[in-house]
Amino acid sequence: MVDQGISKQTLQRLPFYLGYLKTLDKETVETISATTIAEALSLNHVQVRKDLASVCSLGRPKIGYVTQELIGEIEHFLGYDNAEMAVIVGAGKLGKALLGYRGFEDYGLNIVAAFDMDERVVGSEENGKQILPMNKLKNLCERMKIHIGIITVPAEHAQSVCDALVDSGILAIWNFAPVHLTVPEHILVQNENMASSLAVLSKHLSQKFSVEARKNG
Amino acid sequence: MVDQGISKQTLQRLPFYLGYLKTLDKETVETISATTIAEALSLNHVQVRKDLASVCSLGRPKIGYVTQELIGEIEHFLGYDNAEMAVIVGAGKLGKALLGYRGFEDYGLNIVAAFDMDERVVGSEENGKQILPMNKLKNLCERMKIHIGIITVPAEHAQSVCDALVDSGILAIWNFAPVHLTVPEHILVQNENMASSLAVLSKHLSQKFSVEARKNG
Repeated sequence: MVDQGISKQTLQRLPFYLGYLKTLDKETVETISATTIAEALSLNHVQVRKDLASVCSLGRPKIGYVTQELIGEIEHFLGYDNAEMAVIVGAGKLGKALLGYRGFEDYGLNIVAAFDMDERVVGSEENGKQILPMNKLKNLCERMKIHIGIITVPAEHAQSVCDALVDSGILAIWNFAPVHLTVPEHILVQNENMASSLAVLSKHLSQKFSVEARKNG
Repeated sequence: MVDQGISKQTLQRLPFYLGYLKTLDKETVETISATTIAEALSLNHVQVRKDLASVCSLGRPKIGYVTQELIGEIEHFLGYDNAEMAVIVGAGKLGKALLGYRGFEDYGLNIVAAFDMDERVVGSEENGKQILPMNKLKNLCERMKIHIGIITVPAEHAQSVCDALVDSGILAIWNFAPVHLTVPEHILVQNENMASSLAVLSKHLSQKFSVEARKNG
């Protein structure tokens, strides 16, 4: 498997290829070319060919890839067949929604527990998963060798939670709080900006309507 | 209010500024400068000054902004004080998690109902919100003047759901399905790539461990 220096952009496109490949009929689409994938997803075919070559050496000239083999290679490359354990810190509205979302398992993520400072939620369960007090974070992460932490606390607590996760041996942080986190060099932070997405959506609408209003006014 | 041609990048940074400003103590931080915000968020101060100038004309040389005024201006600009209604299509695992997430209201999004093709979930409720059959989508969107549609169906159904939303008068689509959607020019699609984020996280870990293994081997 070719794995040296794959770019973040390639990595982010792989789930898209996978999503598309899984929509295809297994019986009729036995093989597929990079060009076909590129056209279906409105991407550049040189880009697609390069991306696929970085995870899979099975493509053949004029034939392309055996569809099911390619699916297997991408899933393996993305680690979907080898689930990573994670903890959530912040069992508020978003934290509980993520705890309750069973779809992460399909993407190789297994959320084992949540942590919170609020005594009113500590001790309860969500989707069969325990909500534990913050003072148990380090012990659990070290004991279970957990390397992914998900932050769903309010912005003002995010940095201190981040520090606690790093101190507990976490190596990759999925940050849902709308703040910039400062981390040591070996830690990866992936920001999930739901608020930013919503800002883009609602601004598109208000601009649309102000244009309409000017047209009609 | 200055609103002409604001860039998507500026728009996406505004919730970050807001998140940070709300962490500040109201009593002690009465005014704040673009430079202070830039330092706190590890951004370029020229960029921050430019971003803030595009939504708010209240900044004064050497003093900066009155913190609470700036918060109000950004919230107003982002439409948080004027909730947009939205529908979700796809009441599976992710759709239900989003329906159950009460935090969207803080960002000016009010999800009024969900739609699904599966007769087993149609007619039920999640978080007090109805799950309706697909044949009621157009009528409801038109009657309630709903302009935001959220897609949480599997990849293979995403394009047909997208077409149905556009046909129902939806102008902005928040797409959680890992596929590229084809839409008319006046429709905005905002992709939320949770699978892509997870790919980046878990690859960071596997690369980290293969480096460790080489070091130790």
